[in-house]
Amino acid sequence: MTKHNFSAGPAILPKSVLDQASEAARDYNGISLSLLELSHRGPEFTEILNRAVAKTHELTGLGDEYAVLFLTGGASSQFFMVPMNLLPQEGSADYLNTGRWSDNAIDEAKSFGTVNTIASSKEDNYMFIPKDYQSNSNATYLHYTSNNTVAGTQFQSLPKSEAPLVCDMSSDIFSKPLDFKRFGLIYAGAQKNLGPAGTTLVVVRKDLLGKVSREIPTMLDYQTHVKKNSSYNTPPVFPIYVCLLTMEWILGQGGLAEMERRNKAKSQLLYSEIDRNPLFYGLVNKEDRSMMNATFQLHDQSQMEELMAMTKEAGCVGLKGHRSVGGLRASMYNALDLSSVEVLVDIMQEFERKKG
Amino acid sequence: MTKHNFSAGPAILPKSVLDQASEAARDYNGISLSLLELSHRGPEFTEILNRAVAKTHELTGLGDEYAVLFLTGGASSQFFMVPMNLLPQEGSADYLNTGRWSDNAIDEAKSFGTVNTIASSKEDNYMFIPKDYQSNSNATYLHYTSNNTVAGTQFQSLPKSEAPLVCDMSSDIFSKPLDFKRFGLIYAGAQKNLGPAGTTLVVVRKDLLGKVSREIPTMLDYQTHVKKNSSYNTPPVFPIYVCLLTMEWILGQGGLAEMERRNKAKSQLLYSEIDRNPLFYGLVNKEDRSMMNATFQLHDQSQMEELMAMTKEAGCVGLKGHRSVGGLRASMYNALDLSSVEVLVDIMQEFERKKG
Repeated sequence: MTKHNFSAGPAILPKSVLDQASEAARDYNGISLSLLELSHRGPEFTEILNRAVAKTHELTGLGDEYAVLFLTGGASSQFFMVPMNLLPQEGSADYLNTGRWSDNAIDEAKSFGTVNTIASSKEDNYMFIPKDYQSNSNATYLHYTSNNTVAGTQFQSLPKSEAPLVCDMSSDIFSKPLDFKRFGLIYAGAQKNLGPAGTTLVVVRKDLLGKVSREIPTMLDYQTHVKKNSSYNTPPVFPIYVCLLTMEWILGQGGLAEMERRNKAKSQLLYSEIDRNPLFYGLVNKEDRSMMNATFQLHDQSQMEELMAMTKEAGCVGLKGHRSVGGLRASMYNALDLSSVEVLVDIMQEFERKKG
Repeated sequence: MTKHNFSAGPAILPKSVLDQASEAARDYNGISLSLLELSHRGPEFTEILNRAVAKTHELTGLGDEYAVLFLTGGASSQFFMVPMNLLPQEGSADYLNTGRWSDNAIDEAKSFGTVNTIASSKEDNYMFIPKDYQSNSNATYLHYTSNNTVAGTQFQSLPKSEAPLVCDMSSDIFSKPLDFKRFGLIYAGAQKNLGPAGTTLVVVRKDLLGKVSREIPTMLDYQTHVKKNSSYNTPPVFPIYVCLLTMEWILGQGGLAEMERRNKAKSQLLYSEIDRNPLFYGLVNKEDRSMMNATFQLHDQSQMEELMAMTKEAGCVGLKGHRSVGGLRASMYNALDLSSVEVLVDIMQEFERKKG
């Protein structure tokens, strides 16, 4: 049975990537050894890692003034590693609070310097992206979360600041072209658009490193991983390989411009139906809607069980909204095909006829 | 061509485990979805995680007074997380320095309290395990590395201390029965006996936690992961699944006693040949030899290239010694079959005839 995977993350990956990953777990490249049992210092993984770094440079258009790292610990570990590495104890950083994850990032940063939350939609359940704020001219960086997976909002343009931007792109990285040069540091847990759970991509402008005086454990110091090309210790071999395959897939499909075209088509189809169909309503400010995660609700929530049974029957999975928001959430990452959104929209229309 | 994988890590895994892992990467349990794209909060992974925790309890014989965590960051991250979580700034801990990794653990611990290195073989290139030392009665814990992958030595019995033992078991976990109740904390990077690279097993006695007053970032606090059953953030789904499969394989083969029987048979066969064959000599103190990693050398090192060509011809991989030691290193983890060691011993004997 064909499944339509709307899961918020870990999330859908391209079928061809999964097939290659599966084959590599049995026999990597026909060498009669699994990728899972290969030394991280051997020629096979060294080539994988170097290619993954090169593909990241290619997709972002960033040159050697940026280091590409494949770490672990998820975006949640970057919440403290960013200020630990970049923010001097006597310095300050600007933060935009647009969702649960930026809120956590703010909490973790407070131990390492002055944190100025210059805008927040927390009081309004994160239902919009704040646009009216003043960034501080002396901020070491401005931190924000480009896409808010829980609420379903997304920045439509880059925040206004003269400071380098630091961005948690976990849930929309490589979903559209961006002016990546505006960023001092980008991080992303792999498990949405990039690959499976188990590795975290960090892209950092090298000249921002080494400016804090605090003592940092070796494994938490970005400079350790820059010097050793993410191989100071054993990196997460298999997750990195799947990220490489996914980046190659993106490039093979036409790159970030093509991803944006597809993501726009999918999200416009779904949001149009949400707005047209009298049974449903969208949960967030229209102009801030995410191309990745559409959050919506039934006017009559007593119909939810019946609707969910229909989506399940059609092979849809992962449509339940986050427990803090409720309703439905359809995540439409790069690898989700338009036809899956068409299936969902068909169900919504059938449900309307049934209830009408 | 059959390969004989003597790699020090990431290392050989059982064939049946690799086949199951490969299938799960394509289609987990016949649900038409890959394990790589399943939510970590869904029923499939929740069951995997719970089973992995249960199997760890079963293999160690430890009860609920111990928490089982599947983290990331490798043993190298435990080097600082252990003292950060367990050692009060005014307290002290005993460390045994028996190899490169214990040396790193000592370096990282120094920021968090007083570190007493009560015994060391560093000056002798770690060629033996120190036995003559005095542990401190007021130590918070005694830290040691049970098996030294680089030098090829292994503790044959538990260190003498009244303090809880803290042990880096990365390279010999589940290779033999142990009195696990003697330990306050055990950690192991998965990528030798346990699974692929990408997750770190931590087993900790719960009553040792919460005794330090320093501020700890959320992700670095063991208590975070104890409370949330390793799912505070997205855990490394696929590596954890492969660990579960490997633990089930160990139990299915007869458990730790059977692993020890096999590991003894393999290592005795190889060490006997090293001692008998006039072309070779072992690198470490005989009574401290590791069952996992045998390090040895040719008396005439100019013969190395020819020998390595013969091993390669026979399908052996990963036999090159660590760059800091040189010579040969044959790693014989749980999943390596006796027949692979027989192939290596045959080559050593053939080489003797050729050179004799």
